[in-house]
Amino acid sequence: MSEFPLTIPALITPRAEKLFAARPVISRVGTGLHRSTWGEVVYRARRLAGALRDLGIQPGDRVATFAGSTHRHLEVYLAVPSMGAVLHTVNINLAAEQVAYIVDHADDAIVLCDRSLLADWRRVEPHLSRARRLVVLPDIDDAAQDGDALEYEALLAAAEPMAAWPSVAESAPAHTSYTTGTTGLPKGVVYSHRSTVLQSFCTGLADAEGLGSSETLLALVPLALSQVGLPFAAALHGTALVLPGRDLSPAGVCELVEKERPTVAVGFGAALPGLLAHWRDRRPDLSSLRRMVCGGSPVARPVSRAFEVEVGFPIVQVFGMTETSGHGSFSKLPADVGGNASEETRGYYATSQGRPLPLVEMRIADDAGAEQPWDGRAMGELQVRGPWVAREYAQEGSRPDKFMDGWLRTGDVAVIDELGYVRIVDRMKDLVKSAGEWISSLKVEEELLGHQAVVEAAVVAVPDAAAGERPLACVVLRPQEGTTVTGDQLREFLAARLAPSWVPDTIELVAELPKTSIGKTDKKTLRARYAESRA
Amino acid sequence: MSEFPLTIPALITPRAEKLFAARPVISRVGTGLHRSTWGEVVYRARRLAGALRDLGIQPGDRVATFAGSTHRHLEVYLAVPSMGAVLHTVNINLAAEQVAYIVDHADDAIVLCDRSLLADWRRVEPHLSRARRLVVLPDIDDAAQDGDALEYEALLAAAEPMAAWPSVAESAPAHTSYTTGTTGLPKGVVYSHRSTVLQSFCTGLADAEGLGSSETLLALVPLALSQVGLPFAAALHGTALVLPGRDLSPAGVCELVEKERPTVAVGFGAALPGLLAHWRDRRPDLSSLRRMVCGGSPVARPVSRAFEVEVGFPIVQVFGMTETSGHGSFSKLPADVGGNASEETRGYYATSQGRPLPLVEMRIADDAGAEQPWDGRAMGELQVRGPWVAREYAQEGSRPDKFMDGWLRTGDVAVIDELGYVRIVDRMKDLVKSAGEWISSLKVEEELLGHQAVVEAAVVAVPDAAAGERPLACVVLRPQEGTTVTGDQLREFLAARLAPSWVPDTIELVAELPKTSIGKTDKKTLRARYAESRA
Repeated sequence: MSEFPLTIPALITPRAEKLFAARPVISRVGTGLHRSTWGEVVYRARRLAGALRDLGIQPGDRVATFAGSTHRHLEVYLAVPSMGAVLHTVNINLAAEQVAYIVDHADDAIVLCDRSLLADWRRVEPHLSRARRLVVLPDIDDAAQDGDALEYEALLAAAEPMAAWPSVAESAPAHTSYTTGTTGLPKGVVYSHRSTVLQSFCTGLADAEGLGSSETLLALVPLALSQVGLPFAAALHGTALVLPGRDLSPAGVCELVEKERPTVAVGFGAALPGLLAHWRDRRPDLSSLRRMVCGGSPVARPVSRAFEVEVGFPIVQVFGMTETSGHGSFSKLPADVGGNASEETRGYYATSQGRPLPLVEMRIADDAGAEQPWDGRAMGELQVRGPWVAREYAQEGSRPDKFMDGWLRTGDVAVIDELGYVRIVDRMKDLVKSAGEWISSLKVEEELLGHQAVVEAAVVAVPDAAAGERPLACVVLRPQEGTTVTGDQLREFLAARLAPSWVPDTIELVAELPKTSIGKTDKKTLRARYAESRA
Repeated sequence: MSEFPLTIPALITPRAEKLFAARPVISRVGTGLHRSTWGEVVYRARRLAGALRDLGIQPGDRVATFAGSTHRHLEVYLAVPSMGAVLHTVNINLAAEQVAYIVDHADDAIVLCDRSLLADWRRVEPHLSRARRLVVLPDIDDAAQDGDALEYEALLAAAEPMAAWPSVAESAPAHTSYTTGTTGLPKGVVYSHRSTVLQSFCTGLADAEGLGSSETLLALVPLALSQVGLPFAAALHGTALVLPGRDLSPAGVCELVEKERPTVAVGFGAALPGLLAHWRDRRPDLSSLRRMVCGGSPVARPVSRAFEVEVGFPIVQVFGMTETSGHGSFSKLPADVGGNASEETRGYYATSQGRPLPLVEMRIADDAGAEQPWDGRAMGELQVRGPWVAREYAQEGSRPDKFMDGWLRTGDVAVIDELGYVRIVDRMKDLVKSAGEWISSLKVEEELLGHQAVVEAAVVAVPDAAAGERPLACVVLRPQEGTTVTGDQLREFLAARLAPSWVPDTIELVAELPKTSIGKTDKKTLRARYAESRA
């Protein structure tokens, strides 16, 4: 057989550039829509590659982007790996110090920045260990602040297009992205040409996103997260692309759907409640969408059901993380669960994270590393391996707390049922380990939130002499209920719904819960607070 | 990224054996149906691997099958490559001498033969250079003729299942198949684990066969042609499988569809007219089929249209050959040709061989190797490359008449249009090269067959002093028209439909056309006959 290498130019040259040259690429730039085609995008990517070469960028060099989801960002996606360099998409939502840390850590040679993000970038610069050459992508007109930065369109106009991409090994790095680092410094994951091609292939499967040349994809996952790889998949499968710029508001998303009529959307589960509320309020025409694929966080059944029944398209959940190239499992109903299944059955599958995708393998293991059965009850840390799953972090290697015998340790606790459907139960660090039993803090919180008096709930482990750890719940009550409901009443409420050992010994009624910088409940602070009060 | 190898056990162990263990595998054995599951098939494959190991089969050894499409043949498909050996599926329709030639050429260590084909195999044995150990698959009960052959079920019953598959490189050979050798000796193509995994992935694409875990596949391509790889694809995607044994008659196929309700069928275009006639006659219920994918020979538009309009499902054409692992292009309508397109437009695409599949590249080149434009008019030899396209023949290497600069020379002449749709125009050797112009013998024959008096037509090149070659037509007329239509009248008929240079100078009215052993018109004999008459 041929030794045909799996490289990004093989996605682009015969596909986006030739077969699918006429397929549309629509991009929101500022407040307007920019209309382009795959053919034009690749043509400009060749000019960009020529310009970057003239600026001294060599194969292997890192080229950073600090940009929204626009056609220019897409051009950078195609040009940089194709010329043998490494695309580094920087998460634009990080703090300036974190951005500086990862640009230094990745040793980026140059930064391509949206003009509308230039002020943010200028706040990063003082934290860098050395200055970086800057190219401005003119998404807004005001050039006054560009300073000594190069202008993207001027560079393209002056450049000689790169006619032939250099040959590159399929194992060579193609792009890189960093974890958000909520539990420490951001960690870099480097994606190879091979892993990117295989992941892109997977995105076209009928049992996954099903991208193809008659679909139009609305990419609600920001291009700043290259791990999800939507541009590469769309280039391979000839999928028309709608890029929302940086306006991911419900109104902005619905306006794009009404105008451009995409057939499939890929985004974050966390955005669904807002989108649903907007739809119920305004009833925009979303009828072009045949499905919406969501990752990032679990989608509650009332939300996915409302999309199915009211809005008219299904929500499909996926499990993915930076270390799995975004793509690990996909939640399609099993073959024998048809349209006539009960809502209970449909809900069961709709709220799972689905089954592993082809070539991705998943298992659950206990603290000692022993594999747990697939019975829908046994819990274990979810571990993943496969051709687009990381085996190490950039410049850190295979840390044993994250990688084990070729498996990625996700830090999530899950159960897997007999058919291989994965259900995330908790974060490993939030689990309460009580007398050898694993108690899901998420599950106890879910039950507490079912009580009409409860607004917020957080369950954390506290030290216990007999059991090692025991759950403790902190609850915020609705103001008007504050005086009538007691912790003991809530414990009785839980006792009717959970195994006795899962009911917290103590329920603290508090005025508010501590939050992290991105608005999540800060369980670390809670654990420390109550561990001390016990000690 | 992980260095996770692309090997056949990665299709089987986490997928068919675990996730999809309960999915059905139905197989016609003799006149009955055998009901099994993917889980059971893999369990028995592990026993078979243990048995073959006990018989001395080592990694790299070739294991031949001489069998129909049954669950046992499927078990051999999974066991042999997974244990590191090489599956050789022998085409059961070849002559005894040809079978012996390829079994010797592949150096097969052992042969697994259906009992119903044992008499055929016994006719092969005298032609072998050395005797082969024989295992009989008991598809019929009569064991009297088994002689000293081993019995498959007895081997499985006695064997220790192979619990862990040995590790194997993704570039290692997994299976092999031979061309039918109509133009010489059969040539062997060796498929690697990697090429098989990638081809199987492709079969799950929404823009290709779209196999998935809610589909049931009726495999009308015999398992004796491993190049098409349907069992591997079904194992990867969790597709339920219906195997027809050796009864590919229209009645036999329709009976299986009515009983087992497959959702997709993959077979040969040549079988469609017979299937259509049977359907029109008996009206069997084929409503479970959502599509039928056909390769092997072009499907005439009246036939594909009748399936769409009368029977109720579309026919999708593919281009493939032994050297392209069966899979090269796939004929889906382009995105902007919807349900409202004219029949002319739909027919244009339905009769093309479609667009190259992801990672498969196609081009057309003239005699001197110069690439021709994609304008729907320029003709050239179709050349193909990609990760599941051969670069050489077994033990023959890269013959320059078949392989060139990493491209496979298909021997077919094609045009490619602006959107990349490929249309086979003729076989290279049947083309008439007249004064620098390429004349398609197929096209001229097609026009002749449009005349009501014409039953058969064959166009061949004859030497010409001025033009190099000129077309000559041999025509068989309907008996009742024989005395009234002249060659000159047919030339006038063609002159109204073809460019002047394409009209044959001579039209010979003949009583019959010479045929090859498989019933095709023997153009070689015709060329020789008329070349001499001219000389």
